[in-house]
Parts: sequence; C-alpha cells; structure tokens
Amino acid sequence: MDLELVTIGTELLLGFTVDTNGAEIARTLAAEGVRVLRRTAVADRADHIRDAVQAGLGRTGAVLTTGGLGPTRDDISKRVVAELLGLPLEFDETVWADVLARYARFQRIPAASNRGQAEVPVGGTVLRNRWGTAPGLWLERPYAASPRNGVGLVIMLPGVPFEMRMLLQHEVVPRLAGRSDGVVIRSLSLRTTGIPESTLAERMGEIEREIAPLTLAYLPGIEGVDLRLSAWELDPDEAERRLRIAADLIRSRADDLVYGEDETDLAALVLDRARATGLRLGTAESCTGGLVGGRLTEVPGSSDVFMGAVVCYHNDLKTSLLGVPPEVIAAEGAVSEAVAGAMATGALTRLAVDAAVAVTGIAGPGGGTESKPVGTIWLALALGGAVHTRKSVFGGGRHEIRARAAQAALSLLYKHLPH
Amino acid sequence: MDLELVTIGTELLLGFTVDTNGAEIARTLAAEGVRVLRRTAVADRADHIRDAVQAGLGRTGAVLTTGGLGPTRDDISKRVVAELLGLPLEFDETVWADVLARYARFQRIPAASNRGQAEVPVGGTVLRNRWGTAPGLWLERPYAASPRNGVGLVIMLPGVPFEMRMLLQHEVVPRLAGRSDGVVIRSLSLRTTGIPESTLAERMGEIEREIAPLTLAYLPGIEGVDLRLSAWELDPDEAERRLRIAADLIRSRADDLVYGEDETDLAALVLDRARATGLRLGTAESCTGGLVGGRLTEVPGSSDVFMGAVVCYHNDLKTSLLGVPPEVIAAEGAVSEAVAGAMATGALTRLAVDAAVAVTGIAGPGGGTESKPVGTIWLALALGGAVHTRKSVFGGGRHEIRARAAQAALSLLYKHLPH
Repeated sequence: MDLELVTIGTELLLGFTVDTNGAEIARTLAAEGVRVLRRTAVADRADHIRDAVQAGLGRTGAVLTTGGLGPTRDDISKRVVAELLGLPLEFDETVWADVLARYARFQRIPAASNRGQAEVPVGGTVLRNRWGTAPGLWLERPYAASPRNGVGLVIMLPGVPFEMRMLLQHEVVPRLAGRSDGVVIRSLSLRTTGIPESTLAERMGEIEREIAPLTLAYLPGIEGVDLRLSAWELDPDEAERRLRIAADLIRSRADDLVYGEDETDLAALVLDRARATGLRLGTAESCTGGLVGGRLTEVPGSSDVFMGAVVCYHNDLKTSLLGVPPEVIAAEGAVSEAVAGAMATGALTRLAVDAAVAVTGIAGPGGGTESKPVGTIWLALALGGAVHTRKSVFGGGRHEIRARAAQAALSLLYKHLPH
Repeated sequence: MDLELVTIGTELLLGFTVDTNGAEIARTLAAEGVRVLRRTAVADRADHIRDAVQAGLGRTGAVLTTGGLGPTRDDISKRVVAELLGLPLEFDETVWADVLARYARFQRIPAASNRGQAEVPVGGTVLRNRWGTAPGLWLERPYAASPRNGVGLVIMLPGVPFEMRMLLQHEVVPRLAGRSDGVVIRSLSLRTTGIPESTLAERMGEIEREIAPLTLAYLPGIEGVDLRLSAWELDPDEAERRLRIAADLIRSRADDLVYGEDETDLAALVLDRARATGLRLGTAESCTGGLVGGRLTEVPGSSDVFMGAVVCYHNDLKTSLLGVPPEVIAAEGAVSEAVAGAMATGALTRLAVDAAVAVTGIAGPGGGTESKPVGTIWLALALGGAVHTRKSVFGGGRHEIRARAAQAALSLLYKHLPH
C-alpha cells in the first residue's frame, strides 16, 4: 500500500518548526508495509491544504495529514478535508467528555475554543486521543479519483509530536494491519561512530553490487554514520533473510567499527555492559556541561548503573569537587590529557563508582589557540586501576562539537567496559 | 521571489533521518524575502529527483535542493540536475585541492570516492565548502518552462546540517540579496512557557481580527508555546512597524507570560540576568541527569556565570555530594519539596554559587505512584537566603518530561533572579 504524507502548518514553510513527525510516521508505516511515496509541506491555508490532499488522493488514494487540529483559529485542516470528502461536521458529546476529563485531570478549565475540537465529520471514525485534546480522524469514503478502487482514505493526526506518536501506534497501525498484501519494505541499519563516511565506503568496496537488489545508504549524523540496508517489495521473511546476509557481509568488512543496529543508542549499550558486570558509572564533565549524564539518564532504568556526575565548568570546581591539582591546570591548561585524567580519577573516588569518564575541551566559538583549536577534546576513562585517554578534534559548531564529545565519551566507555 | 525546496534522500521517506534542514532554509530565506512555496521530499532515485526539480522549476523557476552530494554511491543529485539543465560535468582541480587540504587538516587520507565530489557542471558556480568536502552549486541557466523570464535557478547544497547552514549563510544569502524586489515576509515570535495553548488563545481574544492582515499562529513545542506573528508582502519597514504594534498588543494582554522573542533561549536570558547582577549559578539535578547544565552551557560564553552542577542520580550522592539528610529522603521520598530544597541549599555551598536550582522528579516510564504519578517534578531555587519551590506534573514520555523539567528549572531561575 502506498500513501502520501501532507504536513500542515505555515510554520513548516516559514521554518519555525522542524518536522520531526514526518520521519517518525514514515518509519512506522514502512515497518507495516505502507510506503510513503511523497512528503509535502503546505501552509495553514484552506486552498493549499485542499490542493495537497486532493493531489495525494488522486495519486495514491491514501493521505495521512498531521497538524491543524488544535483549538486555535489557524487550525482549519478538519474543516477542509471534511468538505473535500463531502462530510458535514457535528458536535460529538463523547469527544467533548474526553476533553473535559483531560482538563479536570490537570486541574484546568477548558477554553471556549476547545469546543471546536469535539466537532467531527459525520461518518468518520474518531481516533480517541488519550494524550491530548485534539482527536485524530480516520475518514474512508467513496472518492471517484482514487486509484484504490474509488475509495479515498484520509487519516488526520494532531501535529504535537507526542500525541501524534501515540495515536499512530495505538490507533492507526492496528487499522492498517492486513492492508499491505504481504509485500513490505524492511530496513536494517548498522551504526558506527568516529569514522568518516568516505573511509567506511572504502572498506565496503563493491558491496552495492554484491547485495543487490538490496540498497545501501550512508547516513552521516552528529553521532556517527549509519549504514542503512533496505529490502524493497519482498515478502517479510525473505526480506529479513537477505538483510541478515547483507549485514553479515558489512560486519565482515567493518565489524570493529559497528557498535549496534537500528535505533540502538550507544548510551543504552554502555549501561547494559556495566549492568552485566555489576559496575557503577559516573561522569566528570567540563565542556559538555552535563550532556554525557543527560544521554545516560535518557535511557529508562539507568538509575541502577549510573550514579551521577560532577559538572566542573569552572576550574575552581575541578579542584574543589574532583581534586584536580591547581598546579596541573596551571601548567597543562584545563584542556589537557593530565587534567582529563585527574578529573576521571577524582570522579571515581568522589562519586564512589567503578568507572568514570571525563571530558574537557574547547567547544567554541571562542577559546581556540594555534595548538588547541576549537573542537579539541580530551577524554579520559578511569577503570580498574588504569586511565585510558583519547584526544579528538571535532568539526562543526558549538552544538555539534559538544554532541560529538558526548558521543565520543560514551564510545570510550563502551570500548573499555568488560564484556 | 518564490522558490521550492526539494530534499533528497530515501532516508527522508523511510524516516531514518529527520529533516532539520528544511526548517532552517525556509527561515533564512523568508528573512531575505524569498518565500518557500512548497517543500517536497523525494528518494535517492534519478527519476524522482528529476521529476521534483523539473516540477519546481516549472512552477516557480527556482529550486533549492539539499542532499545527495556526498562521496558515496547513493549520491546522484548533481548528475541528475546537471543533465536536466543540459550541463556536462568536469573535474575541477580547485575543488579537488580544497578536498585534499581539508583531509590534510584532519590528518586523514581521502578515499577514491571523494574524487567524484570535485566534479562540477560546466558553467555552474561552485559554492566553496570550507566546512566539509561536498561543494555546493549555483546553476542558473536558460530554462524554457521557467516563469522567471525563461531562466531556471537550481541551488544545490549538501545535506549535512552544519555544512548546509554555513553554505546557506555565506554563499547563498549574499547571492540572493536584491532579488526580492523589496517585498518580504517578516515574522516575529513571542515565546511563552508553562501555559497551555488554549489558555493563551483565551487571553488573546479577538486578536486575529485586530491585527489583520498580519497572521497569528500558535506553535506549541516541548519548551512552551510560541505566538508567531507574520507580515506578508509588505515593504520591510511597514512590516516591521506593524509587527511591533501587534507584538505590543499581545504583550498588553499577556506580558506576564512572554519571556522573549524569536529564537530567544531561556537559558541565555537566565545567564544575562545573572551576569548583569554578578551572580554565579549552579544546578543540582536528579531526574534531568545534567540537562539543565547542558542547556546553560550550550550558550557560548556561559563560563563566566555558570560554575557547574552536581548530578546526584543515586540517593547516596544526594547525601555525600550535597548533604541532603538521609532521614529526609527516607521520610519524604527523593521526589519531594524537602529533598529539592535540601539539594538546592546543598549546591549553593558545595558549588560556591549565589543561586542554585534543584530538580528531582519521576521521568518514567516506571516509578510512578498514585500520589506521585510519572511526570511529577519538584523544583527548588536557593537564592539570597530564601528557597523557592514549585511542583509540576508534566505530560508526555520520558524525553518530554525531562525536557519540560529542565525548561521549568530555567523558568524558575529567570523569574527570581534580580533584574
């Protein structure tokens, strides 16, 4: 089954909102065998919304929209789509009761504008929103121009990412099951970090030819380069079998560079390794300002392994909280192998942990010198009586340098934790 | 001047990459008076890329593409567009020298696949990429179907966000200057936090009617709701004047709720207030795991104000690093007003700062109880001998709850710092 995505919101065209929904919807639908053929972003204008939905219905017969279902007056999607499908709107008491209950739970009073959220197209199915006030809609109606046997399907979801995600998983995916006639798109990604895209490609050699008809894409991101394999239009078992063979081929050429598959988070792998051997972890952070701790604690259940962190942004705190000798800071500079090492060993004791990773560096834009340019990062890991250090020079702006430093700190932990 | 955006990459349709570039390009171009009329995402397939670029050129005469310029074999955009415009490719020694120099700087050897990056369409202008290896391209050629007097413009930028941003600012914007015939889109956003969208709308009353022809959009995000005013197709001075009048009107109805304008980061405002009165800041974090410190240190120059943080994820560290009495943790629970308060006062002393904010809460998915459901957050601020506390219950998943808790901590600091 093919489908087009229409994201609605003037803010998307003016650039005030990043469309994270589109990626999530595409990924979720692909796993169900529903292929997103095109993504179009249009403004909150009735004529533009109508054009995009109409064109999508004409090409594939199925459109999923996000956005434009909120209580404020720029939210007009529901009205436009209902009109396009010839469905009048009516006030739905059940939906209104949901809105009232939700407000009561958060001890708030609904505004008059919220009543509009309880209006639904007659004959449509309301996708109950237990995570917000704008319900989703499943509208499936005769539509002459549709290539799907004259039936048009419009699925409407709110634009708020958390609500969209919950409705997609709990209401849309179950209704799509069984519509994909057994032919699916399956993907598998192998994740790497710290290696440039061209070096990876060199290692891969003629792999595109060897794995055909599967495809391979190199996806560089802040945390590293993912190698994504995709199997198109095969039955699920055959797709999975071929993906495994291709993944094994990649691993045979670059096993040392691959740390995980698909959505695998390096922070979660670090926690798993530590948990398996009963080690407690801590961090000592300067230029990352708490980001390494932030990454580790983003993983649910991290509290049995991650004890805490000391963020010693100011040099005085490197000394008072971690015991870094001020004369070492004076002699070597705060961004140095010696200071990183002393931060790590200090954290080991002060946080009472078994492994501590330390980060100190120059995130920019100021503070760079000839010998220590912006992007210079020193990492140290104290573990089992030893201290392992590593220096990197990262490109990018302040944001990228800090995010790469945090990823590199996790990578250092991951490599050295016993397994 | 109107333009269409075509983002290229199968990963965008499979959802393995979030398109952050689109938003940034749209925002930057809007400020230059160039309106993005449509955004389309297509796969790394020659026929799909050709269709989208061709259609865009036919509608507006100008297309900006991102993606598909990298060294790996799935990167075919340049070839397709060159062919569409009838331009052969040739190897460019200057571009190749740039690639070699860049590799030398990072002490790496270019792969054979990098040579393709030095191939450029004859007659096109190379947009020199000093931040990566894939140059951008500015291709302006006679193109019969273009509504821009038979001239077609295709601007091609790499997909890597940092490189795209730098090329856009330094190479594209200067070349677009003067093409917008004085008519621009200007926007102004007023930022709020901690207030639901419908409450804001209630306060605004009949404002849409009063500010016409300007438009108002409510943009809810994790950090709060932005109120975005837009002025379309006016001359820049008139647009700015009307935006200021409308912004004043909004502020007259909700001044207590607005903390800043446009891209203003609450963390930067907190740092500014502290800097103005010579106060040093620190944080004590449990459920946020370092995110508040991460937010503050993301701001360049934060080191003169932000001293550091203690992340006491484990209760033992709340006691050993911050002096929270274990009997208080036992009696009240780690997520309580008393523990938040003790964390804040402990941080004040241990970090030797003038103001310390503490966060403790239940980020989920586990750990919630009837009286303290997932999303419960206690904040405390120790400042000038007083301790201010606040309780919130946030919706969303673990990620949203933690991000909202960090924003609320910054908001508490901002409200109480002297100004």
